[in-house]
Amino acid sequence: MTQSDTATILARLADTLESRLPQNGGDPSSSYTAKLLARGPDSFLKKIGEEATELVMAAKDNTPERIVSETADLWFHCLVALAHYGLRPEQVLAELARREGISGLVEKAGRP
Amino acid sequence: MTQSDTATILARLADTLESRLPQNGGDPSSSYTAKLLARGPDSFLKKIGEEATELVMAAKDNTPERIVSETADLWFHCLVALAHYGLRPEQVLAELARREGISGLVEKAGRP
Amino acid sequence: MTQSDTATILARLADTLESRLPQNGGDPSSSYTAKLLARGPDSFLKKIGEEATELVMAAKDNTPERIVSETADLWFHCLVALAHYGLRPEQVLAELARREGISGLVEKAGRP
Amino acid sequence: MTQSDTATILARLADTLESRLPQNGGDPSSSYTAKLLARGPDSFLKKIGEEATELVMAAKDNTPERIVSETADLWFHCLVALAHYGLRPEQVLAELARREGISGLVEKAGRP
Repeated sequence: MTQSDTATILARLADTLESRLPQNGGDPSSSYTAKLLARGPDSFLKKIGEEATELVMAAKDNTPERIVSETADLWFHCLVALAHYGLRPEQVLAELARREGISGLVEKAGRP
Repeated sequence: MTQSDTATILARLADTLESRLPQNGGDPSSSYTAKLLARGPDSFLKKIGEEATELVMAAKDNTPERIVSETADLWFHCLVALAHYGLRPEQVLAELARREGISGLVEKAGRP
Repeated sequence: MTQSDTATILARLADTLESRLPQNGGDPSSSYTAKLLARGPDSFLKKIGEEATELVMAAKDNTPERIVSETADLWFHCLVALAHYGLRPEQVLAELARREGISGLVEKAGRP
Repeated sequence: MTQSDTATILARLADTLESRLPQNGGDPSSSYTAKLLARGPDSFLKKIGEEATELVMAAKDNTPERIVSETADLWFHCLVALAHYGLRPEQVLAELARREGISGLVEKAGRP
């Protein structure tokens, strides 16, 4: 996976999830995400609690593959929640950058 | 925030977190992350459960700023866990891409 | 601890927690519970998520003392939530009895 | 529900759950609890995280029936975990009593 691929994964995934929203014609019968979004917040918020617990268990078991897999599950359901609330993962990344002071580093690195 | 900025935030943040590992000289007295990493898994795994719950509460309150902020908190502590276990966020993104079949779409989009 | 002691612990604890409610004169400066109740739901609901995660970690570590202790923490914060919402642990026990069909067994056992 | 009923619900429920343990002949095909216990810790620990999140959501919605019902779900899965680890709810109640200083009050109340 190249750097440019990772750049676009969250954005592309968010685009896909948005297309599964009921108001955008998402079909609950043909897509897991469209079903969650059609059922409303409790369906995917519950999964956030569940997947967080599964990540904790995978970590306690010290099993790398499951840690990666459960983190992906957790982030995925966070992305579903963001889509429902009209938010974007780029806003989360910007918040992370802001807090860690990486935003400034990035700007600096971008200067000639 | 440009596309290339978002590309590098998770990778840069992961680099920073790795530098806070005890074995890399992280100083628990000067960094929150170094303190968590020095205390060991339970300290940051507990935060994953706590932040997941806070995200759920922010979502139930339908407060966009807090949803973004709590998602950032949750992902941050996931990144701390990944650093502890010698894993990278790029692996999580690759897993997300693999599952969603976006990997293929990305390749296709990259063709002339 | 005798049978009659266990009978009354949850009820007595609920009585104590109710006396810590702001509307009943609970003093946030002298009691942890009164402070939680004065701050409102998010303060103790967040603890429910946190203590659930700590119970899961204690279980994964297979440490009996911590499992008991974390379960007590979790149930305690559930009791705080019940007090806030004007509910009683007896209602939770009745629901457990109803589901498990123990209610009938208890009634039957109580017959001469 | 009388006082003496509530006294015995947790103890009776714990007895029932113990009879569902694989080593006590619990049949996974005829009982939800026996199935959880046969599958091992992750199956019921995951439920603790899930039910804690559902309780938090019911609380945020301020729906009394669901708060009672979700608390019952959460406590039930805690009881399943206790059974698996050879622990009893009476130990959790004793810990709650010890912390809250109710133990002493109970003793005092029991004096002539």
